[in-house]
Order: sequence, then structure tokens, then C-alpha cells
Amino acid sequence: MELLGQMMHFPMLLSSIIQAAARQYSDVDIVSRRVEGDIHRYNYEDCHVRSKQVAQVLIKRGIGSGDRVGTLAWNGYRHMELYYGVSGIGAVCHTINPRLFPEQIEYIINHGEDRYVFFDATFATLVEQIAPKCRNVEKWVMLCSEDALPRDFSVPLESYESLIAQHAPDFAWPSFGEERAAMLCYTSGTTGDPKGVLYSHRSLTLMAYASALPDALCLSTRDTVAPVVPMFHVNAWGIPFSAPLVGAKLVLPGAKLDGESLSTLFAEEGVTMSAGVPTVWLAFVEHLARTGRPCSTLQRVIVGGAACPPSLAASFKKLGIRAVHGWGMTETSPLGTVCTPSRGYGEKAPEEQLLTDSKQGRAVPGIELKTVGPDGAELPRDGRTSGELMVRGHWVVERYFGASASALSDGWFATGDVATIDEDGFLHITDRSKDVIKSGGEWISSIALENIAISHPEIEAVACIGRAHPKWDERPILIAVRKDGSSISVEQLLEFFAGKVAKWWLPDDVRFVESLPFTATGKVNKLTLRQQFGHR
Amino acid sequence: MELLGQMMHFPMLLSSIIQAAARQYSDVDIVSRRVEGDIHRYNYEDCHVRSKQVAQVLIKRGIGSGDRVGTLAWNGYRHMELYYGVSGIGAVCHTINPRLFPEQIEYIINHGEDRYVFFDATFATLVEQIAPKCRNVEKWVMLCSEDALPRDFSVPLESYESLIAQHAPDFAWPSFGEERAAMLCYTSGTTGDPKGVLYSHRSLTLMAYASALPDALCLSTRDTVAPVVPMFHVNAWGIPFSAPLVGAKLVLPGAKLDGESLSTLFAEEGVTMSAGVPTVWLAFVEHLARTGRPCSTLQRVIVGGAACPPSLAASFKKLGIRAVHGWGMTETSPLGTVCTPSRGYGEKAPEEQLLTDSKQGRAVPGIELKTVGPDGAELPRDGRTSGELMVRGHWVVERYFGASASALSDGWFATGDVATIDEDGFLHITDRSKDVIKSGGEWISSIALENIAISHPEIEAVACIGRAHPKWDERPILIAVRKDGSSISVEQLLEFFAGKVAKWWLPDDVRFVESLPFTATGKVNKLTLRQQFGHR
Repeated sequence: MELLGQMMHFPMLLSSIIQAAARQYSDVDIVSRRVEGDIHRYNYEDCHVRSKQVAQVLIKRGIGSGDRVGTLAWNGYRHMELYYGVSGIGAVCHTINPRLFPEQIEYIINHGEDRYVFFDATFATLVEQIAPKCRNVEKWVMLCSEDALPRDFSVPLESYESLIAQHAPDFAWPSFGEERAAMLCYTSGTTGDPKGVLYSHRSLTLMAYASALPDALCLSTRDTVAPVVPMFHVNAWGIPFSAPLVGAKLVLPGAKLDGESLSTLFAEEGVTMSAGVPTVWLAFVEHLARTGRPCSTLQRVIVGGAACPPSLAASFKKLGIRAVHGWGMTETSPLGTVCTPSRGYGEKAPEEQLLTDSKQGRAVPGIELKTVGPDGAELPRDGRTSGELMVRGHWVVERYFGASASALSDGWFATGDVATIDEDGFLHITDRSKDVIKSGGEWISSIALENIAISHPEIEAVACIGRAHPKWDERPILIAVRKDGSSISVEQLLEFFAGKVAKWWLPDDVRFVESLPFTATGKVNKLTLRQQFGHR
Repeated sequence: MELLGQMMHFPMLLSSIIQAAARQYSDVDIVSRRVEGDIHRYNYEDCHVRSKQVAQVLIKRGIGSGDRVGTLAWNGYRHMELYYGVSGIGAVCHTINPRLFPEQIEYIINHGEDRYVFFDATFATLVEQIAPKCRNVEKWVMLCSEDALPRDFSVPLESYESLIAQHAPDFAWPSFGEERAAMLCYTSGTTGDPKGVLYSHRSLTLMAYASALPDALCLSTRDTVAPVVPMFHVNAWGIPFSAPLVGAKLVLPGAKLDGESLSTLFAEEGVTMSAGVPTVWLAFVEHLARTGRPCSTLQRVIVGGAACPPSLAASFKKLGIRAVHGWGMTETSPLGTVCTPSRGYGEKAPEEQLLTDSKQGRAVPGIELKTVGPDGAELPRDGRTSGELMVRGHWVVERYFGASASALSDGWFATGDVATIDEDGFLHITDRSKDVIKSGGEWISSIALENIAISHPEIEAVACIGRAHPKWDERPILIAVRKDGSSISVEQLLEFFAGKVAKWWLPDDVRFVESLPFTATGKVNKLTLRQQFGHR
């Protein structure tokens, strides 16, 4: 017979996180730059009260357990209230990426069968465009006060503020099983239709604990955290959950993610930690360097979503800010690895430290990694042998939303990343498996070549792709953007590689362009580049 | 219909913690001072291998799911292997406090129905004494090699090393529900029989995550952690689980807990963090002060199990070590609160900082606190109103082992502590409810009076108890131990209180004694003192 522990049992629910924050960290602020342009400031207790008002609106309107409620919104306090208000009643908060093509957004809203959609004023035109084709949406709610609603709008609207004002703050969160769905986020779908990942209260709560650990984001109540990564990108990497869990002050930057806006906001609010993709940080450090203005409170920045070029990490270091590499994906909620120093890091030679810093780091507790060869057999953890990265753990997808088949092979999720893992467990993503260049039966890392090119002082942006080759199958070429005023030649850039890589890794060619194409999640769209430049 | 999240599902099992540590932190050390006297050193991979050997021994001997396996052992690597080897097969590792009276130990082993007991050589005499009355114990196993087994022993014995040597290291941990019992620990039973608390894999894993957070023990892989609190005291406050979870190096001090032994071990192994009760730390800081030898790597020390006198915290501060106050009990696994600085702590005046430091801190995420009056109604969180402390959360007892009735009142566990909670959520234990002195309908805190007396340079140790009084019901008196060479008088000690407390709080009398009586968990035994000195 099973002998069970005799401890209290509470389900791990997201509503418990905001409720506890309201109790213990009631006067810790959430500061938002609003779409309206001004700064909004309130605290965790206020956020809890308004989340409970959202919950009551939804219940009154007949939104029930498991129903999907969409959001098209920037990082702000109302979006935060929807995270908790929607999930708190057992419904599912479906964050939609507004940077996708309108047809993809329609697809996602229809596939998710969203019954309500809440949106920021920024996206009013988009809503008029897509609303007629979103057949399940009963109500579009604009995140504004009644008087800010647009006139002559083609879609019937309600205002968020008038809706929630109808409800009193006293409301008891319902209790239910922690396996219940809480949040829904779709992959960007660069290949094929976007796929939904349905996070549970349990998976998000466990990730919130793990992500606040010293060797992950290291969040305490003395931190002021600004998630620059949008709340529609995999729940802003969990920060809307981990910050209230530990009582950290939150700074939500809204729509303005340029260097000037961010650095001003960070300085005014004393931001100690932030998180975002490399493209945002490139503009940020360039702005700080240009203006000579420091960002004295900022201690560390989590860089994820794409590989952090060593030159970016070096720029941060000059500014006294530590760039912390992370790796994850929509399917991993997203926190997979974080690169914090190992034991004995301090005694290592500077070049060894740099090598470690350039990696994606170790699995956070709760996540397991391995690399496998073409036959599926696990490869050695030697820091050299590269293979496909497999992942499993408490907050890794098991099945896509609406799919009947498992997304796994033999219990592991195949990430599509090519990587090495070293003796200390440090992951190093060498490429996406679809981006790696297969030349003469060997692999060439497109990321390694891009990192060299971007370190050239006259190169603004670069992508490396494989171009078809009759003898070698593929050969690497660079698609590069010169900095203003530069007239660097193909030969000059290629010479820059001499001695930095093996000869057979040297790119065959460089094509200079005015700008690179980007996907809706801010990554270089290599598919487009391959279509344009990948054939001889 | 319920919509469940579609994430992977793994039970939270303790075996996953040691398995992940062996994989990712394989070469991080566990260093033990053995009962044999020497220093033993191996790593997490070795620990995992031997834990799997323990598991196989037990399975072969017919120990099954839910069966209890007792330990009478100091902090050491073999005890660690038992934690994981026993719980990993679904059996229950029952840690027994060898400092209890033999009759209590018999009671606990019989009540727990332990089938096997593993013990350190230190406790051989004890085992000979109690074995005849421990009717369920099929086998006593001494934690030593075959050649170290005692001859002419009255109890049939096996040696641990020869037992586990019979099994190969390859073994796959079984999977089972995370609610399954994993560890068992009895309260010290100063009033009535000891009561068992049965921890689950889920409750211990969640506490391990929470306890490593920056605002709790703040554990990273760069830490070297020495739990001085014994592994038979509420699982050494969870450190045997939290250290491998984050990959911290472990230093297990064995039986030698004197200042000289600890400070030598700490210096040799570069200990950064430790945890223990005030009595151990009083001897430790006195040793450091006397020898003038610093402990340069030691950054912080968790002080729990009893209130940390401000004078002890001040002594640590002088040595450059931060004393971090914590609160918990067997029934809370034990991590309830930890006193880390709040936001804005740095801007507070030094005396305000001292006031905060003297409190027990805030609830770690996953634990909720409240104080209640005699009518059970919640009291204000104002830092002034004191009442009985109630607690609930993921790792709080629901029911004692073997009890049919719940241990709770209205879903909360009544701690028996008298406390205040302030606006920022900081708990301050003012007394145990059985120790608080009820004088004229008002409460006098015995801890507050003890803290003043112990800060007198001629006082070695002190306890404050209530003495029966015909008019006031009770009046405070001090039972004190003078330092060597001191001849401080009753009047001199009482004068020392002038201006430090309200007049009606002034103790009525002082009784000097040679030493104070202690309970098996190292706390002053006030029950004995009340029997001896509590009547007029």
C-alpha cells in the first residue's frame, strides 16, 4: 500500500502568486510606460485588486474554465492584470504576437478559438482588419478608459476600464487542479502554421521558482526588473510570475523599446535587471555609448531569443553591465539554460572565462538536456561533439494545442538546435539545424561565422547562410549590412576571417544589402535570405 | 470540461535531485569529517552511485514502498546516501535524534515501526541498550567497513560497506507519485510523546527550490555549504536537498561541532555559508574572537532553532559574517521565514536596520503566516500586536504520523509561538506561548529579557521563566550562569535592566546556577527550570 506524506496540499496556482505578493509586498511598485505616453505607477496590492475585478467581468460574461481569452498588448499593468485575472478563474490567457502577419494572427485567434480579445490602442487598425474573419470572438475590448474609445470604429468595442469598474475588489480566487491550462502562446511559425503551447499553472509556477534562483535570473525583493522581452513572447520569459513571487519591483516599458526610451526609463526607476533579445540590446548599448550616459543601477541583462554576439557582451562589460546568456524556446516556457559562472570560474584565465560566457549556460533545476547523433544515440558531454539538442523537464511541451499526437521523440523534445554540451554541463548552441551549413559531409556553424563578421567595426548586421554548391553541397556566404559611411569591400571582409577559422570554413562570398529581413520575433529571417541568395 | 495544460509531467522526486546533480555537477565535492576522525572526500557522482547501491540493498532485503528505515547518524556522506537511497525506492528515511533519552528513542523507533536502522559507531552503546526493546527492527547496520565492526557485540550487526559492495552502480530509480512519503522526523516531545512528521517528495522538493532563492539561503553552485544543524534535526533544514539541487559543494562536519573543529574545517574547505542553532554559534564566535583567527571565506550563517540574541549577531558582524535569522519547526520542514533585507533597507538608519535584523524575517514563497487573538480572529500586521502564530503552505504538516485527526485548526497549523508581523511581512517571535509570562493580564516576553541579560559581559547563559505570584499570577525571574571569574550579584544584574524595559517588566529575582538544562535539540529546557524555580 502506498504511504503518502502527511503534509498540507495546495495546488500551485498563479492566483496564489499575486495574492501572496499583495499580502507581503503590498507596497512594491509596478511601473508602466503606457501606450497613452505617460508613466503609470501602482503596487502589487492594486494589481491584485484589479486582477480580481477582471476575473469577475469574465465570470459575469460567461467565460468559463478552459475558455481562451486573447491579448494583443505591450508590456503594461493592464496586460499583467489579464495574466492573473484570466488564468485565476481557470480560463486561458492567450497572448498573441501583434508583429505577425495579419493572416497569421487571424489563424491563431481562430485556432485558439478565443472568445474575448483585449488589445492596446496601438493595434486598433489591426483589429478592424482582422475582426471580420475572427469568427469565435464575441467581444473586442480596448485597454483604455471609456473616453479614449475610438469613434466610427467598424467593430463593436468596450473599454477595459468601464468593464472592470463594475466590480468590487472582494473576490475569492477559485481553487482547482494545478494541471489546468493557464496560458497559451503560439510559435512564430516561420515554417508551417504557428503551433500553440498550452502552459499549466504547475509548469509556470515551478518555472517561476527555478527562474528566480541565484544561478538563473537571481531575483530578490531588492531587484527592479524590466522585462523588455514582450509579454506576448513566451510570457516575457516568466518574469510576470517570478517578479511577484519574490517581491521584485516591475518596470514595464510598453511599446517604446528604442535605446533612448529604455535608458531613460531604466535610470528613472533604478532598474537592476532586464531581459531581451540581442537586437534590442545592440541599439541600447549603442545609445549608451553614443550619449556617454551611464545606466548605473543596471547590474545584469539576460540575453536570449538568439545567440548573444561576443561583441555585444563586451560592449555591456565596458558599461559595467553583465550580459547573461540564456537559452529557451516557446516549447520550453522558455527558460532552459542560463549562463552563470561555474565553481572555479574566478580562477580561470580570462580567455577561458570568455569562452564560458559565450555559451548558453547550464540547465536550470527542473530541466534536462542531451545531444544526440543522427541515430538518436546520446553524444558525449565533451564540449566538442555537436548534435541535435534534446530537452525534457517540468515546463517542456508534451503536445501542441489541439494536436492529438505527442510532440516528443522517446520522451524528449527535439529542439531543432545544433549544440555541444561540455563536462560542466554548459550548453553551446552552434546553430539551428535548419541553418547549419553542410559542406562536404561536415558542418559549419553559421553563428560562429556571424560572430566574427559582426565584430568587424564597419559591419552593422550580418547573416550567414549556405549557398548550394555542386561539389560540396553547400558553402557559407555572408549577407551583410555596412555601417553608415563604410565602403568595406567583399575582399576586405573576407580577409578579416584569416586565421580566425579553419580554411574550409572561410565564406565563399559576401553580399552587401541595405537591411536584413526579420521574423515577427525579431530574429533574422534566413528562410527569405536562402530563397534570395541561396542558389548559384 | 477541464482543459489541462499540455506540458510534460514528471513527479517531483528526491531521486531526480541527486541524479541531476550527478549529471551536471558531477565533480562538485561532498566533504565529510568522519566518525573515524579523518576527512572523506568524493563528489555528487560518487554519492549518486552509492545511493543507488543502498537502494538495491534495501530492495533485495525486502524493504518496500512505505517501509521505514531509521538512521542514528551525524552529518556525513553515508547519511546522505541513506537520504537518497531509502527515499528513492519509495521507502521512508526516518532520521532519529540520538540526543533524546533512550526511552524516547525506543518509543520513536517502535512508533515509526522501523524495519532497519543504520547507525554511526558513536551510537553503538546506545544501540546495545535499546535494541532488545525495538521489536520491529530486523537489522542493525553500522555505518562502517566490515573490519571496523565491534567484536563481542550483543546485537547481530552488518556493516554498511560490505552490504552496499554487493551491488553494481547501474540501477534505474523507480518513478512514483510525488505525494509519496520520503522522510520522517519526530518532534523533540518536551511536552508529551514525540510526534512524527511525514514529509513527501513533493513537499521536500518544493522547499528545496524555495530555500535556495536569493531571499532565503541564496544558494548557488559557487557556494560551499556546511550544515552544522544535524541531519537528524528536520533534515538539516533541507540543505541535503537544496545543495545538490543547485550544485553547491557540501561540507558535513560529523560529530565535532566545537569552535576549533568547525573553524578549522571551514577554513580548509572554503565554506561560504553555514546553518545552525545559536548555542553552536556562541561557541564558534567565541573561539574565533579568542584565537584571532579569521574565517575569511564565510559570508553568512543561518541562525535558527531558537531566537538569535542581538549580541550574537553583533559578534558575527564584527567578524565580517552576516548572521541571517530564520524561523521554522519540525512541522514546517522547517523553512518558514528568513530575514533578508527588504527593499530600501540600505537607506534605513542603522538602528532601524538592527531592528529588522533582530526579527525572524519574511515567509519564503510557498508559506503563509498570520497571527490570531484568543478568539482566532486575524490580528493586524502592524509590528506591535502580538498573538499566536499560524502557518500554512506546501511544506507544513497536515496530520502527524499515525494520527487519524488533523493537526490543523481551520486549515492552519498553530505553531505555539507568540509573534508580531509588521507591514512588510517581517515576523518577530516574541515568545513561545508556553514560555510567555502572564503578569496582571499582560504578556511579558521571556526572550526580550533574556536578550538583555545575555548582553551583559559577565553573563554566560540565561533563561527567563515565570514564577507563580499570588497577585500578578506570574512574575519574571532569571536563571543565569556567570562567566568564569565573575561574581556579579543579583542586584548588579537587575540594575543592568534599568531604562531598558518598562518597570513592570523588570525581573523580580535572579538565581545563579552552574549550568542550564538543555533539551535534545539544544534548546534550554524551561519545563525543568519551571519545576525547580517556578514556585514561590
